[in-house]
Amino acid sequence: MSAQLIKPATITGFPEYLPEERILEQQMLDKIRAVFESHGFCSIETPVVEKLEVLLSKSADTNKEMYVLGRLQAEEKEEAKMGLRYDLTVPFARYVAQHENDLVFPFKRYQMQPCWRGERPKLGRYRQFTQCDVDIVAREKLALEYDALIPAVVCEAWQKIGFENIVLQISNRKILAGFAEGLGIEKVGDTLRILDKLKKIGSDGVREMLTELNLSTKQIDACLKIAEINTTDLSFADKVHALGVQNETLELGLNELTECVKLYASLCKVPYCVDMSLVRGFDYYTGTTYEVQLVGTDFADSIGGGGRYDNLASTMTKSKLPGVGMSMGISRALGVALKLGLMTTGAKSPTEVLVVNVEGADKTKMLDVAEKLRMRGIKTEVYLEGGKLAKQLKYANDKKIPYVWFDIDNMVKNMETGDQQVADPNSWLPQK
Amino acid sequence: MSAQLIKPATITGFPEYLPEERILEQQMLDKIRAVFESHGFCSIETPVVEKLEVLLSKSADTNKEMYVLGRLQAEEKEEAKMGLRYDLTVPFARYVAQHENDLVFPFKRYQMQPCWRGERPKLGRYRQFTQCDVDIVAREKLALEYDALIPAVVCEAWQKIGFENIVLQISNRKILAGFAEGLGIEKVGDTLRILDKLKKIGSDGVREMLTELNLSTKQIDACLKIAEINTTDLSFADKVHALGVQNETLELGLNELTECVKLYASLCKVPYCVDMSLVRGFDYYTGTTYEVQLVGTDFADSIGGGGRYDNLASTMTKSKLPGVGMSMGISRALGVALKLGLMTTGAKSPTEVLVVNVEGADKTKMLDVAEKLRMRGIKTEVYLEGGKLAKQLKYANDKKIPYVWFDIDNMVKNMETGDQQVADPNSWLPQK
Repeated sequence: MSAQLIKPATITGFPEYLPEERILEQQMLDKIRAVFESHGFCSIETPVVEKLEVLLSKSADTNKEMYVLGRLQAEEKEEAKMGLRYDLTVPFARYVAQHENDLVFPFKRYQMQPCWRGERPKLGRYRQFTQCDVDIVAREKLALEYDALIPAVVCEAWQKIGFENIVLQISNRKILAGFAEGLGIEKVGDTLRILDKLKKIGSDGVREMLTELNLSTKQIDACLKIAEINTTDLSFADKVHALGVQNETLELGLNELTECVKLYASLCKVPYCVDMSLVRGFDYYTGTTYEVQLVGTDFADSIGGGGRYDNLASTMTKSKLPGVGMSMGISRALGVALKLGLMTTGAKSPTEVLVVNVEGADKTKMLDVAEKLRMRGIKTEVYLEGGKLAKQLKYANDKKIPYVWFDIDNMVKNMETGDQQVADPNSWLPQK
Repeated sequence: MSAQLIKPATITGFPEYLPEERILEQQMLDKIRAVFESHGFCSIETPVVEKLEVLLSKSADTNKEMYVLGRLQAEEKEEAKMGLRYDLTVPFARYVAQHENDLVFPFKRYQMQPCWRGERPKLGRYRQFTQCDVDIVAREKLALEYDALIPAVVCEAWQKIGFENIVLQISNRKILAGFAEGLGIEKVGDTLRILDKLKKIGSDGVREMLTELNLSTKQIDACLKIAEINTTDLSFADKVHALGVQNETLELGLNELTECVKLYASLCKVPYCVDMSLVRGFDYYTGTTYEVQLVGTDFADSIGGGGRYDNLASTMTKSKLPGVGMSMGISRALGVALKLGLMTTGAKSPTEVLVVNVEGADKTKMLDVAEKLRMRGIKTEVYLEGGKLAKQLKYANDKKIPYVWFDIDNMVKNMETGDQQVADPNSWLPQK
C-alpha cells in the first residue's frame, strides 16, 4: 500500500530550465558579468526578502503584485512584515543608504538576481524573472558623461550575448516636461504619463486622455507633435525648436540629450533612436531615459530600460544620491530568444571527454587519464560503473559529449565525425 | 516639510555583503563551479518558490521554520499554497521527477542557490543561506564508486576555495542499523537517531535516552562501543567484528564502507575519519554518510554533509531513483572564514586600471586607451567627470585599484609601490 503520489510540478510563471537551457543562461550571465566588470562595475547581491516598509517606500503601482512572507507556524509577528523584492532598484536604494559610509562614490555596481511579481504570465513575462541592473551613483552630483556610458556598456553586453539586432531608444524627460510647462500645462506629470502611452494606444487614444485632463486643443496638438518626433541623428533639437515653445527646462533637456547622444555614439556602435514619447513609467526619472528594443522580430516589448534620477534613496537618507542606471530583462530575453529560435540549445552537460570503462580496463589508469585531462582544463568524466560499451556510448551521445576516450588503447574518438586517433592525455587537445 | 525617513536596514539573519566581501564570495562560487564542471556536473537552478505540497513531501521537522508566501492583495486562493525552499534536496527531487524523460541518467548536477529557514541566527547560521548541492542520480541502480567520487570532488572544491584544513567524516548507516538489528533492537531508526547525538550530548546522555527507549544495558553498552569507533584507516571493520555481532546488513555495510574509503583515498588527499556515530538526521539516507569538518578552529559544526539514498523522489514518482550527494554550506563557511580571519577582504572593485582625467586631457584618447586595455582583458574604468587629481587618486586608493593611467603622457603608476613608467596601452600588462 503506498500513499498517493504528489504531482511534481513548478508553479505557473516560475520558469525552470533543463540542463541544456541552463548552459545557455550561464553563458549569458557570464558574458554580461565580464562586460560589466571590464568597465569596473562591482557585483552586489541583496537578500531576496526585504522589510515591507522598504518595499513600499517607492511606488504603490506594484503593491497588488507583491509577494509577502509569513511562517508556516508563525510565532513572531515581526516576520509577517516582509516580502519578496519586485525590482532591484528598491533594494539597491536601501543598500546604498544603509552602507553609505562603507561605499566609495561614484559607486558603480551591477546586480543580477531574480525578482517576483504576482502577474499573469505570458511570453516574456514571468512571476519570477532575473534582471541585471547596472547603476552609477554619486554624492551630490554625477557628471552627464555617465548618461552615455551606461547605455554603451549595456548595449555592449546585449551584443556580447548574441542580441545583435537592437536599437537604443533614448530621450530626456526635461524636454517633454519643459515643453509642457512652456505650453502652460499644469498637470505636467500626468501629461507625461499619457504621452508615454503613444506607441501603445496611438495618437487618438492619447488625444482622448489629454482631453479628459482638460488640456486645450492647441496644447494637445503641440504635445502630440513633440511626442511624435523620432530621429536617428541630432536633428531632434531643431525639430523641437520648430514647434516654437520656449522654456528653460526644455533647453536644458535638449542640451543634455545632444551631449549624451554625441558621446554615446562615440562609445558604442549600436544604433540609437531619439524618441520624444519615451518617458518611462516611474516618476523618479528626472533626465535621460532609455529603452532597448529588439529589431526584426515580432516581440514588441522592450528588453530593458532605465534612466537618470536625481535622488536614489530620498525616503531613506538625507544624503542626495543622484545616479543613472539601466536594467536588462534577462529572463525575458532568454525566453523570447528560445521561443523565436534566436538561440538553440546544444550539450546537456559541460563534459568534453567521457573516459569509457571497457572490460579489462584498469580503473586506476582511467582515473589518472581523467585527472591529467582536467589538469589541463579539459572537462572530463569517467563512466565509473562500467557495463556494456553501447550503453556508455549512448550516454555520451545523449548528453552530446564531443569526445570519448578509450583508456585501454589510448584512443580518442570524435563523436560527431567518428574519427579515432591515438592520443596522449598530457598533450591532446579537443578541437574548439 | 519632509516625511519621516524609513530606516534602511536588512532583516536580521539575512546576510548582505559589501563589494569587497562579495568579491570573495564570487571567487568561492567561481572556483566551486569550475571544480564541479571539470568533473562533468551540470548546473541547474530551481525557482525560489515551490508548491507547499512539494515542500511538505519530505519531512515534518522543518515545517515550523518554513516561510510561506501570499500576495499583499490576494485575489487567488491558489497562491497562498506556496513557500520558499528550505533546502535544495526537495526541489531537486521534484526537478528529477518532473523532467525525468528529458534527463540523461546517471544525472550529475550541482546547484548553488539560497535556501530559507526561520531559525534564530548565530555564527554560521542564517535565515537566508547559500548552499551548493552536488548529486549523482541513476535509474534503478547506482554504482558504489560514486559514493567515493562525490566526497572526492567536494573536498577538492573545499580545498580550491581555501579550506585546506578539513577532514572527511564518513560512515555507512547499514553498519549501525545491521548492528542494532543483530542485537535484537526493535526501534532501529530511533536508536540511530540517538546515537547520532553522541558527540553533542556525550555517552551519558545517549545512555539515558537509549534507556528511555527500553534498550537493555547489554544492548546499550554494545551500541556505545560501536558508536565510539573512530579510525583513520580501514581497521574499523576489525573493530566492529571484535564486538561479536553477526548480521547480514552489518556485513554489507562494512564491505561497502571499506570499498568506498579505499577508492576515496586513491582519488583525494583530504584525510578521512571513519566515525561510526555519524548517521545524519535525515531518514532518507540508506548507506554511506558524510560530514566535512574544519580542523584547527573553534567552529565545531560541520560545513557540509550528505550521503547515499535509495530513492530520491518516492513521494512524487514510481521510478526508483537511487543517488548519492553532498551539500556545501557556502554562507556558513564564508561567514566563519571572515569571522575567524581565515579570509581577508581586498579590493572594493574589479577595476585594475583607472584612467584619470587631468586638465587638458583628450577625452576621446582616454576612452580609446581604456578600450585598448579592455580588449586585452584588463579591467579598466575612466574617471569621466574629471576634477582635481587628488580626488581621482583618492578614489583609486579607496577602491584599492592597483594602477592609475595618465593618458596625457602615457604614464602608468603602480599605486602600491608608487613606481611610474611610460607604457603602451597595446602591450602593457599589470603585474599579478
